[in-house]
Amino acid sequence: MGETGAGEGCEHWSELHELVAAANVDGLRERLEMLPPSDVARAIARLGGEEQRNLLTLLDPPEAAEVVTGVGDAQAVELIETLGPSEAAAIVDELPSDQQADLLGDLGKAGSEAILEEMTPSEAADVRRLMAYDADSAGGMMVTELLAFGFNQCVADVVDDLRRHGDEYCDYDVQYIYVLDNSRRLRGVLRMRDLLLASGQRRLGDLMLPEPLSVRVSDGLDAIRDFFDAHAFLGVPVLDDCGRLEGVLHRRAFQEAEEGRTDRIYLESSGIVGGEELRTMPLLVRSGRRLSWLSVNIVLNIAAASVIAAYQETLSAAIALAVFLPIISDMSGCSGNQAVAVSNRELVLGLIRPREMWRVIVQEMKVGVVNGVVLGLLLAGAAILWKGNPYLGLVVGVALTVNTLVAVAIGGAVPLALKGLGKDPALASGPILTTVTDMCGFFLVLSIAGTMLPHLS
Amino acid sequence: MGETGAGEGCEHWSELHELVAAANVDGLRERLEMLPPSDVARAIARLGGEEQRNLLTLLDPPEAAEVVTGVGDAQAVELIETLGPSEAAAIVDELPSDQQADLLGDLGKAGSEAILEEMTPSEAADVRRLMAYDADSAGGMMVTELLAFGFNQCVADVVDDLRRHGDEYCDYDVQYIYVLDNSRRLRGVLRMRDLLLASGQRRLGDLMLPEPLSVRVSDGLDAIRDFFDAHAFLGVPVLDDCGRLEGVLHRRAFQEAEEGRTDRIYLESSGIVGGEELRTMPLLVRSGRRLSWLSVNIVLNIAAASVIAAYQETLSAAIALAVFLPIISDMSGCSGNQAVAVSNRELVLGLIRPREMWRVIVQEMKVGVVNGVVLGLLLAGAAILWKGNPYLGLVVGVALTVNTLVAVAIGGAVPLALKGLGKDPALASGPILTTVTDMCGFFLVLSIAGTMLPHLS
Repeated sequence: MGETGAGEGCEHWSELHELVAAANVDGLRERLEMLPPSDVARAIARLGGEEQRNLLTLLDPPEAAEVVTGVGDAQAVELIETLGPSEAAAIVDELPSDQQADLLGDLGKAGSEAILEEMTPSEAADVRRLMAYDADSAGGMMVTELLAFGFNQCVADVVDDLRRHGDEYCDYDVQYIYVLDNSRRLRGVLRMRDLLLASGQRRLGDLMLPEPLSVRVSDGLDAIRDFFDAHAFLGVPVLDDCGRLEGVLHRRAFQEAEEGRTDRIYLESSGIVGGEELRTMPLLVRSGRRLSWLSVNIVLNIAAASVIAAYQETLSAAIALAVFLPIISDMSGCSGNQAVAVSNRELVLGLIRPREMWRVIVQEMKVGVVNGVVLGLLLAGAAILWKGNPYLGLVVGVALTVNTLVAVAIGGAVPLALKGLGKDPALASGPILTTVTDMCGFFLVLSIAGTMLPHLS
Repeated sequence: MGETGAGEGCEHWSELHELVAAANVDGLRERLEMLPPSDVARAIARLGGEEQRNLLTLLDPPEAAEVVTGVGDAQAVELIETLGPSEAAAIVDELPSDQQADLLGDLGKAGSEAILEEMTPSEAADVRRLMAYDADSAGGMMVTELLAFGFNQCVADVVDDLRRHGDEYCDYDVQYIYVLDNSRRLRGVLRMRDLLLASGQRRLGDLMLPEPLSVRVSDGLDAIRDFFDAHAFLGVPVLDDCGRLEGVLHRRAFQEAEEGRTDRIYLESSGIVGGEELRTMPLLVRSGRRLSWLSVNIVLNIAAASVIAAYQETLSAAIALAVFLPIISDMSGCSGNQAVAVSNRELVLGLIRPREMWRVIVQEMKVGVVNGVVLGLLLAGAAILWKGNPYLGLVVGVALTVNTLVAVAIGGAVPLALKGLGKDPALASGPILTTVTDMCGFFLVLSIAGTMLPHLS
């Protein structure tokens, strides 16, 4: 985990390349075992599709499943896509239920159906059930691997079952034992510790903690965050609308979804749209996704710049202004983006709601006055130093001050407005912000300049 | 958790306000119990400092500690700062050890010392030890609440101890029981399940899984990520350099640190620097932090725009170009930022290393050629439509195509270069990128235009 020698990443890649070409299964196993998962992911990403397929099929399905689990979600999808349906099904069979659903969900309808047909029927049925839930709901994040017993069973039954199924259960992430009635409705929970301290003849129904807290399959990220904020549990049972136990939602799965959300906001606000981008993806996928966002942006940019076109005469008469137009456009964009980031983050944390827009605008305007005046003075000073013309300083200083105010107010408000309309604030806030602030900034500079043109030329 | 009526956030706030003013402890308890944590956090944020203090001191310390745990890190610091040292110490005493260390670490030297002096000496000593570790190391993230027994003790001793200390331990997040030798060196681990299946006379040393995996107090996020990627554990023992057990690192704490890192990258790349910003923070703190970044940016912007100043004559002769300068500056910034985002994210995921810069540049250039040509054609088309002058189209189209190539190459490479130099890529990549692409873009437009000026005027 320390610094590795130059080019070592390439060595891992060429090692795997040679081991796969030689079909050296033992060498491959040993190498994969030894390398940290991030090195494995990097090395596999460098292999061609055919080589990736050979690597996965050389290994036993449980080993291949471990490789697939170790790489990120997007790379896992790429790996599975190199395989035929029955090869893929053998590997997917070995994954935990929530990963099965996530992976197949990302594969698209046709690809996932082909694999589901080849899977063990009981596993396939489980996955289909999980895939029916929204990926960001409790149903979409839960696992179905859990320990459940009837409330009339006794401690000795449980200990006996644990003894017999120890090998299978050791992969489960067991915090609690769930106690069900005859209709699979959840009646209580038992901690391992409670079992430990009880005699073998006790009935689970007498020993359990009754009326356990739970969430519903349809609960979304906000409801689940409130739950895990309020309760220090590592997992929570997930019930259907009739109170039947459907699965367990681990705090870990929820946290991964939350992390995914922050990650997506960062990517979308940077113009990476339609899912994460890895540099190992095909060129046209990467180009196309980036272009889909850029091509909207260029139209908005041209619209904003048309304000300059309308004032060409003013600009000709005072050409020095042309130097300041990009500065005012960029600085207002920066100020506005700070406000966008704070709003997006407070929305994710649940600290503000769309209807609080007025409060947000007021709080942003306060920052905008302070920052606008400071930045306006700086830019006015630079203009006066350069041209020795106080009127030029006045025009660009006032324009930047006013436009900073406009930018922070719009930047703070737009994410709330988009969220209130049910749109994704991370994606559209930036382009909307910069279009408005560019138009407004160009208009301010050129219209103020128009009123004092004799002093500027 | 469904939609709440208009203004309900305000109602929670005024309810708390009145309950605190009336010193109605029971009413306050009931209200805090009933509200989801995000509503509590929002309502408390609206109270004045004096009211926040009264709210916390009206409650018993364990209840107040629950309130402090329920709000975000930054808000928790604000709350503790409203209190006197002994009031704060009583509440901090009740927090888990890792939260104690995080909170006091954020308070600054003077504030944390005053509180530590008032804390229970044994708790204070634990916290001081944790605070000495880097916040993103295993030592900084671990908790010291754990169950450890000697390898000569027997199962009955453990069960007896669990029975006697059940109340205290129920707050612990216990996955394993740690088995130590006489020098507190870690010799093995026991699962609750293993205890359950063993007879009371068995020695722990015979029953334990020997040579358990562990991490070192000094291990950083990358090493810990590799560990948790490779092993499906919920927690891992943390040892000092002599192999003595110092604490337990829970996967959850690591994931929170990782999420914090993604969050920080988003905020820093949007120009929110020096820690998270909440709109409840004082105006001058918010303004000052944003300005620290904006004032560097305006200097860079002025430097970039000076290229335009150098070409004023060309611009005067072909004033239509002034319309395209902000478009080319903004579009190149967007293309470059997409590359920055992909690099930052691949760095966080451990998929690329600083020394792979050349590979990243090549992969970005491929996208740059495709996207640059498409965007260049779009902009050239717009210019020709507007002015009917193919030379104008040629100038702006070629400039945008070439500058897109430059932008994605720089955008992809800068985060790796900064990371390689040990600098924070999220913070500086954006400003470096836009400065270079602005300068280059302005130079391209105006110097190409200079060669065909007769056709442009």
